Amino acid sequence: MDLLLASTSPIRGTLLANAGVPHGAVPPEVDEASAKAGFTGSDAELACTLAEAKALSVGRNHPGALVIGSDSIVSVGGRRFSKPGGRGEAAEHLRFFSGRTMQLTSAVVLSRDGAVEWRHASEARLQVRPLGEAFIETYLEADWPEVSYCVGVFRLEGPGVQLFSEIEGDHFTVLGLPLLPLLEALRDRGVLPS
Amino acid sequence: MDLLLASTSPIRGTLLANAGVPHGAVPPEVDEASAKAGFTGSDAELACTLAEAKALSVGRNHPGALVIGSDSIVSVGGRRFSKPGGRGEAAEHLRFFSGRTMQLTSAVVLSRDGAVEWRHASEARLQVRPLGEAFIETYLEADWPEVSYCVGVFRLEGPGVQLFSEIEGDHFTVLGLPLLPLLEALRDRGVLPS
Repeated sequence: MDLLLASTSPIRGTLLANAGVPHGAVPPEVDEASAKAGFTGSDAELACTLAEAKALSVGRNHPGALVIGSDSIVSVGGRRFSKPGGRGEAAEHLRFFSGRTMQLTSAVVLSRDGAVEWRHASEARLQVRPLGEAFIETYLEADWPEVSYCVGVFRLEGPGVQLFSEIEGDHFTVLGLPLLPLLEALRDRGVLPS
Repeated sequence: MDLLLASTSPIRGTLLANAGVPHGAVPPEVDEASAKAGFTGSDAELACTLAEAKALSVGRNHPGALVIGSDSIVSVGGRRFSKPGGRGEAAEHLRFFSGRTMQLTSAVVLSRDGAVEWRHASEARLQVRPLGEAFIETYLEADWPEVSYCVGVFRLEGPGVQLFSEIEGDHFTVLGLPLLPLLEALRDRGVLPS
Protein backbone atom coordinates (compact mmCIF):
# COMPACT_ATOMS: atom_id res chain seq x y z
CA MET A 1 0.00 0.00 0.00
CA ASP A 2 1.21 3.51 -0.79
CA LEU A 3 1.88 5.75 2.19
CA LEU A 4 2.04 9.44 1.32
CA LEU A 5 2.92 12.46 3.43
CA ALA A 6 0.82 15.46 2.35
CA SER A 7 3.61 17.89 3.06
CA THR A 8 6.90 19.10 1.72
CA SER A 9 8.06 20.18 5.20
CA PRO A 10 11.61 18.82 5.45
CA ILE A 11 11.32 18.25 9.21
CA ARG A 12 8.19 16.08 8.98
CA GLY A 13 9.65 13.99 6.16
CA THR A 14 12.90 13.58 8.07
CA LEU A 15 11.07 12.53 11.26
CA LEU A 16 9.21 9.80 9.36
CA ALA A 17 12.26 8.63 7.42
CA ASN A 18 14.45 8.52 10.57
CA ALA A 19 11.75 6.51 12.34
CA GLY A 20 12.03 3.93 9.57
CA VAL A 21 8.73 4.69 7.84
CA PRO A 22 9.08 4.53 4.03
CA HIS A 23 6.77 7.06 2.39
CA GLY A 24 6.34 9.40 -0.51
CA ALA A 25 5.82 13.16 -0.14
CA VAL A 26 3.29 15.17 -2.14
CA PRO A 27 2.62 18.90 -1.69
CA PRO A 28 -1.02 19.53 -0.66
CA GLU A 29 -3.14 22.21 -2.28
CA VAL A 30 -4.86 24.03 0.53
CA ASP A 31 -5.55 27.73 1.00
CA GLU A 32 -4.37 27.90 4.62
CA ALA A 33 -4.79 31.66 4.97
CA SER A 34 -8.48 31.67 4.10
CA ALA A 35 -9.13 28.53 6.19
CA LYS A 36 -7.57 30.30 9.18
CA ALA A 37 -9.21 33.68 8.56
CA GLY A 38 -12.79 32.70 9.30
CA PHE A 39 -12.09 30.02 11.90
CA THR A 40 -13.73 30.40 15.32
CA GLY A 41 -12.82 27.04 16.94
CA SER A 42 -9.88 26.03 19.14
CA ASP A 43 -6.29 25.65 17.99
CA ALA A 44 -6.69 21.85 18.08
CA GLU A 45 -9.81 22.05 15.90
CA LEU A 46 -8.07 24.36 13.44
CA ALA A 47 -4.95 22.16 13.30
CA CYS A 48 -7.13 19.08 12.65
CA THR A 49 -9.18 20.90 10.00
CA LEU A 50 -6.03 21.95 8.13
CA ALA A 51 -4.40 18.52 8.52
CA GLU A 52 -7.55 16.89 7.09
CA ALA A 53 -7.75 19.36 4.20
CA LYS A 54 -4.12 18.64 3.31
CA ALA A 55 -4.56 14.85 3.45
CA LEU A 56 -7.80 14.91 1.43
CA SER A 57 -6.28 17.25 -1.19
CA VAL A 58 -3.45 14.78 -1.85
CA GLY A 59 -5.79 11.78 -1.67
CA ARG A 60 -7.90 13.08 -4.57
CA ASN A 61 -5.08 12.30 -7.00
CA HIS A 62 -3.92 9.08 -5.31
CA PRO A 63 -6.77 6.58 -5.03
CA GLY A 64 -6.10 3.78 -2.53
CA ALA A 65 -3.15 5.55 -0.91
CA LEU A 66 -3.01 6.07 2.84
CA VAL A 67 -2.29 9.79 3.27
CA ILE A 68 -0.76 11.51 6.32
CA GLY A 69 -1.83 15.13 6.79
CA SER A 70 -0.53 17.36 9.55
CA ASP A 71 -0.55 20.93 10.72
CA SER A 72 0.70 23.04 13.61
CA ILE A 73 -0.70 26.17 15.22
CA VAL A 74 1.33 28.55 17.36
CA SER A 75 -0.48 30.81 19.85
CA VAL A 76 1.08 33.26 22.28
CA GLY A 77 -0.98 35.44 24.61
CA GLY A 78 -4.20 34.40 22.86
CA ARG A 79 -2.87 35.50 19.45
CA ARG A 80 -2.26 33.05 16.59
CA PHE A 81 0.96 33.57 14.70
CA SER A 82 1.96 32.90 11.09
CA LYS A 83 5.43 32.73 9.56
CA PRO A 84 7.14 36.12 9.80
CA GLY A 85 6.93 38.20 6.59
CA GLY A 86 10.51 39.41 6.95
CA ARG A 87 13.32 39.86 9.41
CA GLY A 88 11.78 42.98 10.96
CA GLU A 89 8.54 41.16 11.63
CA ALA A 90 10.47 38.17 13.02
CA ALA A 91 12.11 40.49 15.57
CA GLU A 92 8.66 41.92 16.46
CA HIS A 93 7.31 38.42 17.01
CA LEU A 94 10.28 37.54 19.25
CA ARG A 95 9.77 40.74 21.30
CA PHE A 96 6.12 39.74 21.77
CA PHE A 97 7.06 36.14 22.70
CA SER A 98 9.66 37.32 25.27
CA GLY A 99 8.70 36.15 28.79
CA ARG A 100 5.42 34.62 27.57
CA THR A 101 4.22 31.02 27.18
CA MET A 102 3.95 29.71 23.63
CA GLN A 103 1.23 27.15 23.00
CA LEU A 104 2.02 24.82 20.14
CA THR A 105 -0.69 22.51 18.84
CA SER A 106 0.03 19.82 16.26
CA ALA A 107 -2.47 17.58 14.52
CA VAL A 108 -1.96 14.50 12.39
CA VAL A 109 -4.59 12.57 10.44
CA LEU A 110 -4.79 9.55 8.15
CA SER A 111 -7.12 9.58 5.19
CA ARG A 112 -7.86 7.17 2.36
CA ASP A 113 -10.14 7.53 -0.66
CA GLY A 114 -11.78 10.73 0.53
CA ALA A 115 -12.43 9.60 4.10
CA VAL A 116 -10.53 10.60 7.26
CA GLU A 117 -9.81 7.33 9.12
CA TRP A 118 -7.93 8.59 12.14
CA ARG A 119 -6.95 11.86 13.76
CA HIS A 120 -4.90 13.05 16.72
CA ALA A 121 -4.03 16.46 18.15
CA SER A 122 -1.74 17.28 21.05
CA GLU A 123 -0.43 20.44 22.68
CA ALA A 124 2.88 21.54 24.10
CA ARG A 125 3.75 24.62 26.15
CA LEU A 126 7.06 26.38 25.69
CA GLN A 127 8.15 29.02 28.18
CA VAL A 128 10.00 31.78 26.35
CA ARG A 129 12.62 33.39 28.58
CA PRO A 130 13.03 37.19 28.66
CA LEU A 131 14.88 37.98 25.42
CA GLY A 132 17.19 41.01 25.25
CA GLU A 133 17.46 43.13 22.08
CA ALA A 134 21.11 42.10 21.65
CA PHE A 135 20.13 38.45 21.86
CA ILE A 136 17.32 38.88 19.30
CA GLU A 137 19.75 40.56 16.89
CA THR A 138 22.47 37.90 17.34
CA TYR A 139 19.91 35.11 17.08
CA LEU A 140 18.36 36.32 13.81
CA GLU A 141 21.82 37.00 12.40
CA ALA A 142 22.76 33.37 13.14
CA ASP A 143 19.58 31.61 12.01
CA TRP A 144 18.11 33.77 9.24
CA PRO A 145 16.69 32.91 6.71
CA GLU A 146 16.15 29.39 8.13
CA VAL A 147 13.67 30.59 10.78
CA SER A 148 11.73 32.64 8.22
CA TYR A 149 10.01 29.36 7.27
CA CYS A 150 9.03 28.65 10.88
CA VAL A 151 5.87 29.75 12.65
CA GLY A 152 7.17 30.68 16.10
CA VAL A 153 10.50 31.89 14.62
CA PHE A 154 12.52 28.97 15.96
CA ARG A 155 14.05 25.67 14.95
CA LEU A 156 14.30 23.57 18.10
CA GLU A 157 17.04 21.52 16.45
CA GLY A 158 19.01 24.77 15.98
CA PRO A 159 19.80 27.89 18.04
CA GLY A 160 16.03 28.22 18.59
CA VAL A 161 16.40 26.10 21.71
CA GLN A 162 18.07 29.16 23.28
CA LEU A 163 14.66 30.93 23.32
CA PHE A 164 13.18 28.65 25.97
CA SER A 165 13.60 28.12 29.70
CA GLU A 166 11.20 25.18 29.84
CA ILE A 167 9.35 22.91 27.43
CA GLU A 168 6.36 20.89 28.60
CA GLY A 169 4.83 18.27 26.34
CA ASP A 170 5.75 15.85 23.63
CA HIS A 171 8.87 16.67 21.62
CA PHE A 172 7.41 15.47 18.32
CA THR A 173 4.37 17.68 18.86
CA VAL A 174 6.77 20.63 19.13
CA LEU A 175 8.45 19.54 15.89
CA GLY A 176 5.05 19.51 14.15
CA LEU A 177 4.21 15.80 13.88
CA PRO A 178 2.94 13.78 16.87
CA LEU A 179 4.99 10.74 15.91
CA LEU A 180 4.20 8.19 18.65
CA PRO A 181 0.39 8.12 18.09
CA LEU A 182 0.98 8.13 14.32
CA LEU A 183 3.31 5.12 14.54
CA GLU A 184 0.65 3.29 16.57
CA ALA A 185 -2.02 4.08 13.98
CA LEU A 186 0.32 2.78 11.25
CA ARG A 187 0.98 -0.43 13.21
CA ASP A 188 -2.79 -0.88 13.69
CA ARG A 189 -3.14 -0.74 9.88
CA GLY A 190 -0.31 -3.21 9.23
CA VAL A 191 1.88 -0.54 7.62
CA LEU A 192 4.56 -1.09 10.29
CA PRO A 193 5.52 -4.33 12.07
CA SER A 194 4.33 -4.61 15.66
CA MET B 1 37.15 31.20 28.02
CA ASP B 2 37.50 27.59 26.88
CA LEU B 3 34.35 25.50 27.04
CA LEU B 4 35.01 21.76 26.89
CA LEU B 5 32.63 18.83 26.67
CA ALA B 6 34.03 15.87 28.63
CA SER B 7 32.59 13.37 26.19
CA THR B 8 33.10 11.94 22.76
CA SER B 9 29.41 11.01 22.48
CA PRO B 10 28.38 12.23 19.02
CA ILE B 11 24.82 13.00 20.13
CA ARG B 12 25.86 15.30 23.01
CA GLY B 13 28.34 17.17 20.84
CA THR B 14 25.75 17.55 18.09
CA LEU B 15 23.12 18.85 20.53
CA LEU B 16 25.51 21.54 21.77
CA ALA B 17 26.74 22.48 18.31
CA ASN B 18 23.18 22.67 16.89
CA ALA B 19 22.16 24.89 19.80
CA GLY B 20 24.90 27.30 18.76
CA VAL B 21 27.32 26.58 21.61
CA PRO B 22 30.94 26.52 20.41
CA HIS B 23 32.96 24.00 22.40
CA GLY B 24 35.80 21.52 22.27
CA ALA B 25 35.39 17.82 23.07
CA VAL B 26 37.84 15.81 25.17
CA PRO B 27 37.41 12.14 26.13
CA PRO B 28 37.22 11.73 29.92
CA GLU B 29 39.18 9.05 31.76
CA VAL B 30 36.76 7.46 34.18
CA ASP B 31 36.31 3.83 35.16
CA GLU B 32 32.51 3.78 34.84
CA ALA B 33 32.13 0.07 35.51
CA SER B 34 33.82 0.18 38.92
CA ALA B 35 32.05 3.44 39.86
CA LYS B 36 28.71 1.77 39.11
CA ALA B 37 29.56 -1.56 40.73
CA GLY B 38 29.71 -0.41 44.35
CA PHE B 39 27.11 2.38 44.13
CA THR B 40 24.16 2.24 46.50
CA GLY B 41 22.51 5.64 45.83
CA SER B 42 19.74 6.64 43.41
CA ASP B 43 20.04 6.81 39.64
CA ALA B 44 20.20 10.63 39.84
CA GLU B 45 23.03 10.45 42.39
CA LEU B 46 24.93 7.94 40.26
CA ALA B 47 24.44 10.00 37.08
CA CYS B 48 25.71 13.12 38.90
CA THR B 49 28.68 11.25 40.37
CA LEU B 50 29.72 9.98 36.95
CA ALA B 51 29.11 13.35 35.26
CA GLU B 52 31.30 15.03 37.91
CA ALA B 53 34.05 12.42 37.58
CA LYS B 54 34.10 12.95 33.81
CA ALA B 55 34.25 16.75 34.07
CA LEU B 56 36.95 16.71 36.76
CA SER B 57 39.02 14.19 34.81
CA VAL B 58 39.13 16.50 31.78
CA GLY B 59 39.63 19.61 33.93
CA ARG B 60 42.88 18.23 35.38
CA ASN B 61 44.63 18.76 32.04
CA HIS B 62 42.84 22.02 31.13
CA PRO B 63 43.34 24.65 33.84
CA GLY B 64 40.88 27.57 33.61
CA ALA B 65 38.54 25.76 31.21
CA LEU B 66 34.83 25.42 31.96
CA VAL B 67 34.10 21.70 31.56
CA ILE B 68 30.71 20.08 30.86
CA GLY B 69 30.34 16.54 32.20
CA SER B 70 27.26 14.42 31.68
CA ASP B 71 25.98 10.91 32.14
CA SER B 72 22.79 8.90 31.70
CA ILE B 73 21.43 5.92 33.59
CA VAL B 74 18.78 3.58 32.22
CA SER B 75 16.68 1.52 34.67
CA VAL B 76 13.86 -0.85 33.85
CA GLY B 77 11.97 -2.83 36.49
CA GLY B 78 14.47 -1.75 39.15
CA ARG B 79 17.43 -3.10 37.15
CA ARG B 80 20.17 -0.81 35.78
CA PHE B 81 21.25 -1.55 32.23
CA SER B 82 24.55 -1.11 30.42
CA LYS B 83 25.25 -1.18 26.68
CA PRO B 84 24.48 -4.62 25.26
CA GLY B 85 27.56 -6.84 24.84
CA GLY B 86 26.34 -8.20 21.51
CA ARG B 87 23.27 -8.62 19.34
CA GLY B 88 22.00 -11.59 21.35
CA GLU B 89 22.17 -9.59 24.57
CA ALA B 90 20.50 -6.62 22.85
CA ALA B 91 17.55 -8.87 21.96
CA GLU B 92 17.41 -10.10 25.59
CA HIS B 93 17.34 -6.52 26.85
CA LEU B 94 14.51 -5.66 24.43
CA ARG B 95 12.51 -8.72 25.56
CA PHE B 96 12.92 -7.55 29.15
CA PHE B 97 11.94 -3.95 28.27
CA SER B 98 8.80 -5.10 26.39
CA GLY B 99 5.67 -3.70 28.06
CA ARG B 100 7.67 -2.11 30.89
CA THR B 101 8.47 1.51 31.80
CA MET B 102 12.04 2.64 31.18
CA GLN B 103 13.38 5.28 33.54
CA LEU B 104 16.07 7.41 32.01
CA THR B 105 18.06 9.77 34.22
CA SER B 106 20.52 12.28 32.79
CA ALA B 107 22.87 14.53 34.70
CA VAL B 108 24.96 17.47 33.56
CA VAL B 109 27.54 19.40 35.57
CA LEU B 110 29.94 22.30 35.08
CA SER B 111 33.38 22.22 36.68
CA ARG B 112 36.39 24.48 36.63
CA ASP B 113 39.84 24.05 38.16
CA GLY B 114 38.94 21.00 40.20
CA ALA B 115 35.65 22.34 41.59
CA VAL B 116 32.10 21.44 40.52
CA GLU B 117 30.26 24.78 40.08
CA TRP B 118 26.82 23.60 39.02
CA ARG B 119 24.89 20.37 38.60
CA HIS B 120 21.49 19.27 37.34
CA ALA B 121 19.75 15.90 37.00
CA SER B 122 16.37 15.14 35.47
CA GLU B 123 14.35 12.03 34.75
CA ALA B 124 12.16 10.86 31.90
CA ARG B 125 9.85 7.85 31.69
CA LEU B 126 9.44 5.95 28.44
CA GLN B 127 6.67 3.39 28.10
CA VAL B 128 7.91 0.47 26.02
CA ARG B 129 5.07 -1.12 24.06
CA PRO B 130 4.75 -4.93 23.88
CA LEU B 131 7.44 -5.96 21.38
CA GLY B 132 6.94 -9.09 19.25
CA GLU B 133 9.86 -11.38 18.38
CA ALA B 134 9.48 -10.53 14.69
CA PHE B 135 9.66 -6.83 15.49
CA ILE B 136 12.78 -7.27 17.66
CA GLU B 137 14.49 -9.19 14.84
CA THR B 138 13.54 -6.63 12.16
CA TYR B 139 14.49 -3.75 14.45
CA LEU B 140 17.98 -5.05 15.26
CA GLU B 141 18.53 -5.95 11.61
CA ALA B 142 17.74 -2.33 10.68
CA ASP B 143 19.64 -0.51 13.43
CA TRP B 144 22.59 -2.74 14.33
CA PRO B 145 25.42 -1.95 15.08
CA GLU B 146 24.30 1.64 15.75
CA VAL B 147 22.26 0.70 18.83
CA SER B 148 25.09 -1.41 20.24
CA TYR B 149 26.56 1.88 21.52
CA CYS B 150 23.30 2.82 23.27
CA VAL B 151 22.26 1.95 26.80
CA GLY B 152 18.58 1.15 26.36
CA VAL B 153 19.21 -0.28 22.86
CA PHE B 154 17.56 2.63 21.06
CA ARG B 155 18.33 5.81 19.16
CA LEU B 156 15.29 8.06 19.54
CA GLU B 157 16.34 9.90 16.38
CA GLY B 158 16.20 6.56 14.52
CA PRO B 159 13.90 3.51 14.39
CA GLY B 160 14.21 3.36 18.21
CA VAL B 161 11.18 5.64 18.43
CA GLN B 162 9.15 2.59 17.34
CA LEU B 163 9.82 0.97 20.74
CA PHE B 164 7.68 3.44 22.67
CA SER B 165 3.99 4.14 23.10
CA GLU B 166 4.52 7.19 25.31
CA ILE B 167 7.37 9.41 26.44
CA GLU B 168 7.01 11.60 29.52
CA GLY B 169 9.65 14.15 30.34
CA ASP B 170 12.19 16.38 28.71
CA HIS B 171 13.40 15.34 25.26
CA PHE B 172 16.99 16.43 25.87
CA THR B 173 17.07 14.37 29.05
CA VAL B 174 16.12 11.35 26.93
CA LEU B 175 18.93 12.19 24.51
CA GLY B 176 21.41 12.29 27.40
CA LEU B 177 22.03 16.00 27.98
CA PRO B 178 19.49 18.22 29.79
CA LEU B 179 20.07 21.12 27.42
CA LEU B 180 17.70 23.83 28.68
CA PRO B 181 19.13 24.03 32.25
CA LEU B 182 22.67 23.79 30.82
CA LEU B 183 22.04 26.73 28.45
CA GLU B 184 20.74 28.77 31.40
CA ALA B 185 23.86 27.96 33.44
CA LEU B 186 26.03 29.01 30.47
CA ARG B 187 24.09 32.28 30.11
CA ASP B 188 24.53 32.91 33.86
CA ARG B 189 28.30 32.58 33.34
CA GLY B 190 28.38 34.90 30.31
CA VAL B 191 29.33 32.06 27.94
CA LEU B 192 26.14 32.64 25.93
CA PRO B 193 24.32 35.93 25.24
CA SER B 194 21.12 36.44 27.20
